[in-house]
Amino acid sequence: MITLLTDFGSDAYAGAVKGAILSINPSATLVDLTHQVPPQDVHAGAFLLRWASATFPKGTLHLAVVDPGVGTARRPLLLITPDAAYIGPDNGLFTYALPPVDPVGDTEPGFLQPVPRPVLEGTAAYVLNNPRYWRQPVSPTFHGRDLFGPVAAHLSLGVPPHDLGEPTDTVTSLYVPKPRRTKDALEGVVLHVDSFGNLVTNISAGQVAGKRVEVGVAGRTIRGLTETYGDGSGLLAVVGSHGLLEVAVRNGNAARELRIGRGEPVRLRIF
Amino acid sequence: MITLLTDFGSDAYAGAVKGAILSINPSATLVDLTHQVPPQDVHAGAFLLRWASATFPKGTLHLAVVDPGVGTARRPLLLITPDAAYIGPDNGLFTYALPPVDPVGDTEPGFLQPVPRPVLEGTAAYVLNNPRYWRQPVSPTFHGRDLFGPVAAHLSLGVPPHDLGEPTDTVTSLYVPKPRRTKDALEGVVLHVDSFGNLVTNISAGQVAGKRVEVGVAGRTIRGLTETYGDGSGLLAVVGSHGLLEVAVRNGNAARELRIGRGEPVRLRIF
Amino acid sequence: MITLLTDFGSDAYAGAVKGAILSINPSATLVDLTHQVPPQDVHAGAFLLRWASATFPKGTLHLAVVDPGVGTARRPLLLITPDAAYIGPDNGLFTYALPPVDPVGDTEPGFLQPVPRPVLEGTAAYVLNNPRYWRQPVSPTFHGRDLFGPVAAHLSLGVPPHDLGEPTDTVTSLYVPKPRRTKDALEGVVLHVDSFGNLVTNISAGQVAGKRVEVGVAGRTIRGLTETYGDGSGLLAVVGSHGLLEVAVRNGNAARELRIGRGEPVRLRIF
Repeated sequence: MITLLTDFGSDAYAGAVKGAILSINPSATLVDLTHQVPPQDVHAGAFLLRWASATFPKGTLHLAVVDPGVGTARRPLLLITPDAAYIGPDNGLFTYALPPVDPVGDTEPGFLQPVPRPVLEGTAAYVLNNPRYWRQPVSPTFHGRDLFGPVAAHLSLGVPPHDLGEPTDTVTSLYVPKPRRTKDALEGVVLHVDSFGNLVTNISAGQVAGKRVEVGVAGRTIRGLTETYGDGSGLLAVVGSHGLLEVAVRNGNAARELRIGRGEPVRLRIF
Repeated sequence: MITLLTDFGSDAYAGAVKGAILSINPSATLVDLTHQVPPQDVHAGAFLLRWASATFPKGTLHLAVVDPGVGTARRPLLLITPDAAYIGPDNGLFTYALPPVDPVGDTEPGFLQPVPRPVLEGTAAYVLNNPRYWRQPVSPTFHGRDLFGPVAAHLSLGVPPHDLGEPTDTVTSLYVPKPRRTKDALEGVVLHVDSFGNLVTNISAGQVAGKRVEVGVAGRTIRGLTETYGDGSGLLAVVGSHGLLEVAVRNGNAARELRIGRGEPVRLRIF
Repeated sequence: MITLLTDFGSDAYAGAVKGAILSINPSATLVDLTHQVPPQDVHAGAFLLRWASATFPKGTLHLAVVDPGVGTARRPLLLITPDAAYIGPDNGLFTYALPPVDPVGDTEPGFLQPVPRPVLEGTAAYVLNNPRYWRQPVSPTFHGRDLFGPVAAHLSLGVPPHDLGEPTDTVTSLYVPKPRRTKDALEGVVLHVDSFGNLVTNISAGQVAGKRVEVGVAGRTIRGLTETYGDGSGLLAVVGSHGLLEVAVRNGNAARELRIGRGEPVRLRIF
């Protein structure tokens, strides 16, 4: 089983990747996660991949392509964690496939800035640099079809990872800050806007569980949490299916109504 | 075989549902009907489900999730008809899976208003209230992943329906009026706008077959029916693939051109 | 294995086609290429089909439906080439499945004008006129569900092509001009806008390989080619994965930025 997540949208590029895989392994089962990642939005791809892949059986192979730097120096990667295997560009798309690590150095990286992260015990990463498993000739603009797809197919047929490329001990990750604790609040941020317009933040369920809270966002204040989207009315705050605090609008679209998106600050006051 | 129809759009929620199913039944064959139902539009979901599911083999299991009331009092449902099995929220999404019933009571329900409908002989319905077959912990905001998907997987593995929940004798349905006969016309309504912008009405093929007709909609008049979209020119009326009268524009988008949508009156004069 | 490419968009029409196929051949493996071809845009469908189908194993059956003339005189077609089999309307959707042929006659056909093309040796074409293999009753507005899908399913079960219809020796093709050589330039045209907004032209890799070039488009001039989208900055020219010259914007959308689309002239100067 190989899952597919891309930003290929309405075009038939995803079809070309499927053909490339099925030409090598005709009995592969392909499962579309989504091909509607916003174009070239690596973090959106990483976030969607994290939540879509979480429910799959252990050891599933996830092929992910959101690759604005295709053909440049960014490395093609195979990442094997205790949960799953991932193939795609090493540009931060696998940010959530690895446990978060505190930043090193004097200055905190910027929001979603790419940083190298060490590959810890129990996980392995390979730079896919063995052209024997690529589709020839390789287009410098479409590694999904010519490199990632074929390599995924060969891996699914049992080719050992160390034949596909050389081990590496770092993987690129996008820096996702933890909410910052101030005197009387927790300062978080909108991490993702889902297709319903719900604003998913970096504040976790554990940080709000069982507490009386007030959420401030885009100049608006929401008093208390609701259990689900259908409770309350108008603007509401809820712990969503990601285990993260969300701001939503009942039967509406919060991102559109508040005119905000990823990166917007969210302030949580706890009483 | 399990089909999937949702309003999850561009997000990866559909992927998470697929993973939840395949984790329980790895040999399930999943078939996407669509994940592009307009967000939270239960009737559009019901209409699309009715037509997409009609061609599948008898006994196919259809998993449908358009669920603005997720986590509230609306009941999770398994519906088994002589044609197929359906799993999803009991909010009207299965309106067209049951034969229409005349409204009871003094006042006619409003257009697409939810009303309870009796489960007739030959059909069975169950409220999915046995948590043993759910994915734990259940998020109150994502029953597709944590309840409907897992239950569908267990049903596909042979778990008997009465283990999944308790029988019920009513199912929620959205009230779809029949065209109203006046002195010299039939007063219908636009039920659905398809992705080409065609306006599908509640007037059936049988009501226009072999007759000279005139269709009035949005202040425009269409004289006579054409056989297909490529006949005639400009605005046209045709019996579409649903067996219902449609208003279309040749090589164009009728909804956009007339600036109307669902609920708009359509007047059929028969000569 | 049967692939599917349509312009059915967000509606559930693709689901109905899948059901029609699986009712006849339950063990068919269905692979979605895309259902997001722009509505009724036959050339976009032909272009996407050409590139998405190219990677599939020899002999794969591709079902394609972009069919504004459904139910009119346009013929339903089965085309068998040395590479693959194709089923769909004979309206130009299979333009790229056949080798290009020089136009006959005194005047050159217009850009993307439909013209008949002879079926050459090694290829066979059939008009699908045997109703025995259709789904009854056939809606004149939905041959995907009632004719193309069922015929594809029967073909995948081994029904011989000549049982499905009668041989024909012409197939409709959309006229795609070759770039025109002038005194000091090559005058090409934008053939396709992909989902990233990249402008794909009819100028091939061979016509620019190893040369110093300058590309003029929409009043802008691009000096030199880059290897990939991530090189250079702003507006750039690149040989894309189709083996054709593309105009793109780094991390942006060229079609939107230049406000142009298919049919726009592109001027290549070679030094």
